[in-house]
Amino acid sequence: MSEIVTAGILVIGDEILSGRTKDKNIGFIAEYLTNIGIDLKEVRVVSDDEPDIIAALDALRHRYTYVFTTGGIGPTHDDITADSVAKAFGVGIDHHPEVVARFRERWSEQDLNEARLRMARIPDGAELIQSATILAPGFKIGNVIVMAGVPSIMQAMMDIVAPKLKSGVRMLSDTVRANAREGDIGSPLRAIAAAHPDTIIGSYPFMDEEQKPNTNLVVRSRDPEKLAAAMAAVKDMLAGLNITR
Amino acid sequence: MSEIVTAGILVIGDEILSGRTKDKNIGFIAEYLTNIGIDLKEVRVVSDDEPDIIAALDALRHRYTYVFTTGGIGPTHDDITADSVAKAFGVGIDHHPEVVARFRERWSEQDLNEARLRMARIPDGAELIQSATILAPGFKIGNVIVMAGVPSIMQAMMDIVAPKLKSGVRMLSDTVRANAREGDIGSPLRAIAAAHPDTIIGSYPFMDEEQKPNTNLVVRSRDPEKLAAAMAAVKDMLAGLNITR
Repeated sequence: MSEIVTAGILVIGDEILSGRTKDKNIGFIAEYLTNIGIDLKEVRVVSDDEPDIIAALDALRHRYTYVFTTGGIGPTHDDITADSVAKAFGVGIDHHPEVVARFRERWSEQDLNEARLRMARIPDGAELIQSATILAPGFKIGNVIVMAGVPSIMQAMMDIVAPKLKSGVRMLSDTVRANAREGDIGSPLRAIAAAHPDTIIGSYPFMDEEQKPNTNLVVRSRDPEKLAAAMAAVKDMLAGLNITR
Repeated sequence: MSEIVTAGILVIGDEILSGRTKDKNIGFIAEYLTNIGIDLKEVRVVSDDEPDIIAALDALRHRYTYVFTTGGIGPTHDDITADSVAKAFGVGIDHHPEVVARFRERWSEQDLNEARLRMARIPDGAELIQSATILAPGFKIGNVIVMAGVPSIMQAMMDIVAPKLKSGVRMLSDTVRANAREGDIGSPLRAIAAAHPDTIIGSYPFMDEEQKPNTNLVVRSRDPEKLAAAMAAVKDMLAGLNITR
């Protein structure tokens, strides 16, 4: 249980890079992973281009415990994620009999055309991520979890796959509102961060309800005692501030 | 004017990877770049970690015409973007006299502490990105544009830096609503995409106002005639569809 479990996200899609579609998956997966004790370390967004997908996938899958991909598993010509993943792993890809059987239950012979059958193409050896409400399945191969780009479907897939993942010691987090501007607390905060090496202290400015610059201070640690000690030091520092805002 | 100008985005910040903050900058910059004729090719998100920042920056800046970074230029210990950029370029970094002079106009001697002075640290040779309303400046060094993480400030910085960038032939785009499910048009759409190689055809499913699965088809090209020809083929295909939804 003391292992640190890490992850990368690979978002695949021209529509994100053109700005036509605003990604909502990164934030969702990031929060989800934090809650189940997996450290998200890196995100990449690439276009619907096979060499780019393979290069990013290889970089991430060799570096992190898990890689989550979103997008590119639909029925059209620009959906090339499954083929790219198969190439990255050096395995074959074919229509998965179980998926084809489910498609035949759902669609008539006429509707189950070549395009829809593409959604049944799964790399050899992959494990399906599916449910009664998910039409085109995702899959897990090695440490790579391949999911849909449509947020509601991706979220359903996360719920299916999450219980199968190993998770590490959860990163704990505590937040205090400084009622001070970042610039007024930067120097003492740096000293506290240096004195509490097993914690991560973040400083996030925001405009408060009085339209004054304010700051949230977030202390994170896997060790509850170290977190509490660092947070106590932060609160002592804030209590001793002599500033006017 | 026939040059293709490309870009990468590097988002820097633990708070994005933990899911605490939901990024709004990628979508904004993506759309902005499309509108000024710059092709966004890749996005990366990394933590507040100097080796990770430098590695991602080096990968992106050698590959694309421009790199836009967001985050990590505030006054606290976790703001390490400027120092990381200086190291990546192998140049020194020091308090920029022009920025310090502006800070002295704004803050009293007591308020202009070490933390705030950190925001005046600019890599040698960088050009400032600033205005009367921007407190801590961004900067441009080589092909790297360093901006704030707070969306409103980042957006102001984009407006300042954009006129100085070279832009290529703008990618044109046209969209048609298919009134069909993706799976019903995947095969003919693939044939059209193959027959129109200087265009990019994207297929984006959505639930329409009648809660039926529907699809937007987007044709993109730098050549208006080729775009029009491909879009005409798409519309002919849609008009000839014999499907019930």
